[in-house]
Amino acid sequence: MLDLPFLPFCVLLGGLGFVCVAFVSAWCQHWRGGFAWDGSAQMFNWHPVLMVTGMVVLYGAAALVYRLPPAWSGPKLPWKVLHGTLALVAFGLAVLGLVAVFRFHNHNGTPNMYSLHSWLGLATVLLFSCQWLAGFSAFLLPWAPTWLRALYKPVHIFFGSTILMLSVASCMSGINEKLFFSLKNGTMEYKHLPAEAVFANTLGLLILLFGVLVLGALARPSWKRPDADSPDSCQVLALLWS
Amino acid sequence: MLDLPFLPFCVLLGGLGFVCVAFVSAWCQHWRGGFAWDGSAQMFNWHPVLMVTGMVVLYGAAALVYRLPPAWSGPKLPWKVLHGTLALVAFGLAVLGLVAVFRFHNHNGTPNMYSLHSWLGLATVLLFSCQWLAGFSAFLLPWAPTWLRALYKPVHIFFGSTILMLSVASCMSGINEKLFFSLKNGTMEYKHLPAEAVFANTLGLLILLFGVLVLGALARPSWKRPDADSPDSCQVLALLWS
Repeated sequence: MLDLPFLPFCVLLGGLGFVCVAFVSAWCQHWRGGFAWDGSAQMFNWHPVLMVTGMVVLYGAAALVYRLPPAWSGPKLPWKVLHGTLALVAFGLAVLGLVAVFRFHNHNGTPNMYSLHSWLGLATVLLFSCQWLAGFSAFLLPWAPTWLRALYKPVHIFFGSTILMLSVASCMSGINEKLFFSLKNGTMEYKHLPAEAVFANTLGLLILLFGVLVLGALARPSWKRPDADSPDSCQVLALLWS
Repeated sequence: MLDLPFLPFCVLLGGLGFVCVAFVSAWCQHWRGGFAWDGSAQMFNWHPVLMVTGMVVLYGAAALVYRLPPAWSGPKLPWKVLHGTLALVAFGLAVLGLVAVFRFHNHNGTPNMYSLHSWLGLATVLLFSCQWLAGFSAFLLPWAPTWLRALYKPVHIFFGSTILMLSVASCMSGINEKLFFSLKNGTMEYKHLPAEAVFANTLGLLILLFGVLVLGALARPSWKRPDADSPDSCQVLALLWS
């Protein structure tokens, strides 16, 4: 592949993440009536903002910590702590985002957890909680044996990408659902594609692009930390022997 | 990781793919009025069936061709032809699935291409058409130089997984959207979670599980064909040298 350096990519990705958060906030502020924490539709508006910020943008940042060149040498512990802390903040925002939608539903007598979006979204957050706890227990607590870490690491890496994929799929179905709920009347119907629909559909595509770029960065072999315990170290080995 | 053999996994995955196709067909037959090719709602019903069968199940089968142990040795051409043919059939079904929904919309005066689901789904199919054409030109036509194949191969592999991820996200938003459209009246409202909603939500989760299992199988290093031109060959090299 073409030799793209990680840091400029990272700056572009950070910019795209910022644009995603700005877009979802602008959507909720400009078209959906802004924010409150009182069980109203303004309380619901925290749901998309917190989910996109936590489960997509911050989660993506946490996933990419080990791709930063300074993380490649020296002690690994500070980078593990940064990875775990970013993931924990992402998880905290996701929990607040769930509180926002549950309290909005309860306040309005709407049932919770019926749509496929809600099943998918809750499954994603639950999987994320398991991933965080298992990661913390295996890699940050000192008593996990090396063989267990080596066994669990590829599983953690795989579910890391999978959870991001599920988050993006949840955002797609959630934005789609919200637009069908909100754009119902006259010329403002979703099917007539008013400005709000174009804006929120574009937000969906930007979130998708962000997710795909993070997954691409994670999959790129030359950006992986050449660990002694990872299969990639064989590339270094092969080079040394050749 | 635990040493799971590919073939039993493949049989289970095939069973799950069959269940996905059976579920989506049963949903459309039992709850949505069955099938026709006349612009009616029965014509629309071909859309979910063809998209799940083509863009998820057959696409997943095409993606996994090189993981079959018989494909690891001997000439690669027959496996390339199988991979390309399965992908082409998947693409053909997807095009028919698009024709079904466009003709249903046109017949009923409903605009096309306004929802995020439609943007995402069409982007997925367009990306798939580019992927197929580029793959055919680079790997099946004889005049592509080796350096171009080597350069393009990781891109083809990455977009192979990405397109499956996009297909699954399209299915999630599509099933969610269809249930909001269809379940509107009285006790049959989506929010009261009637039997159809539970069934179709479950279909969504089964499609998701199928997609995640295919992506997991593709990512698993020990199931990859040890090609001379792939980075994985270094594992064999390292073993030989150690």
